[in-house]
Amino acid sequence: MPRGRVDVEPDDGLTTRQRRNRPLLIVHTGEMKGKSTAAFGLALRAWNQGWPIAVFQFVKSAKWKVGEETALLALNEVHERTGQGGPVEWHKMGAGWSWSRKQGTEADHAAAAQEGWREIARRLAAEQHTLYVLDEFTYPMGWGWVDVAEVVDTLRNRPGHQHVVITGRRAAPELLDAADLVVEMTKVKHPMDTGTKGQKGIEW
Amino acid sequence: MPRGRVDVEPDDGLTTRQRRNRPLLIVHTGEMKGKSTAAFGLALRAWNQGWPIAVFQFVKSAKWKVGEETALLALNEVHERTGQGGPVEWHKMGAGWSWSRKQGTEADHAAAAQEGWREIARRLAAEQHTLYVLDEFTYPMGWGWVDVAEVVDTLRNRPGHQHVVITGRRAAPELLDAADLVVEMTKVKHPMDTGTKGQKGIEW
Repeated sequence: MPRGRVDVEPDDGLTTRQRRNRPLLIVHTGEMKGKSTAAFGLALRAWNQGWPIAVFQFVKSAKWKVGEETALLALNEVHERTGQGGPVEWHKMGAGWSWSRKQGTEADHAAAAQEGWREIARRLAAEQHTLYVLDEFTYPMGWGWVDVAEVVDTLRNRPGHQHVVITGRRAAPELLDAADLVVEMTKVKHPMDTGTKGQKGIEW
Repeated sequence: MPRGRVDVEPDDGLTTRQRRNRPLLIVHTGEMKGKSTAAFGLALRAWNQGWPIAVFQFVKSAKWKVGEETALLALNEVHERTGQGGPVEWHKMGAGWSWSRKQGTEADHAAAAQEGWREIARRLAAEQHTLYVLDEFTYPMGWGWVDVAEVVDTLRNRPGHQHVVITGRRAAPELLDAADLVVEMTKVKHPMDTGTKGQKGIEW
């Protein structure tokens, strides 16, 4: 994408710098893979800028650790050891949130999702991170585990300069409406169509 | 994506393990951002598997270093220091390929692209890496700087177990035909539509 080129000069009373530095709400949706992967790729750029990053994984089981988790936590260690890049936190709901003593079970996923969202809302209010990745957060939103109107309101009114990326299929229309940037990953061709199963290093 | 579930049981004489371990040719195309970002996110998974990774950037100027480059090279240093993860190489055409003494100029981009492809073909023949990211390689293919039929033939017949990810708009039909997995990034909404310019940490 060409830098510094715009199609429309906006009439919003902001300077270019103010617009450039607008905190973004980004949604990666669609039926195809790449939604989370692109979000974690974005975290690489954020790390390089020295931004404090937090990932919240809402659905994927904690039983299997995705490669991105290990890699981004290795970058956090680089930050802690040398000061390069930014700090990275990785929280997941599957085995119970790291800040909670409770172990998650199938029965209390809704409560766990609600608890995760509460923590995120607290951190947004405290301006704790610069990039938040809410991975697969569209599902608890869609299942009514968290209140869509309250989530969207909190995101719209978050203070300071905090970027938020939300991934998952079937994003709520209210979320898409609030988003600054929406990318839909569309399937053109997938090896599972012809019976190829997922493989390590590619799917996880 | 659910693991281990397939829609069709293939009749190709391969075991599940053979199919699972099939080397993939992946294309990220479409008009929207996320193509390269998702490819670099995939590199995080590959790094975690200890795979040797090489990125070849074909078009973006080397004048500005993308955040992913710094972050993935930091992971390469982690690998060299501790043995964790895999080795990562990052090559870019913009300032002349690292293996070449020549400095690239506007005038010889076609020759530089050809030289980059020659090196990739040599490495594929030597099975030098497990994941190759050919970033924005669809453009030199589209501009006739490299021969599409030869590229596709080389990719189809690459030996061993080497995954290749190619990114960029307007991927050639022959490339899509040869690909195992094609993801199209579709624009739903983008802040540049309303005059917001790119910003560091998000666009680069």
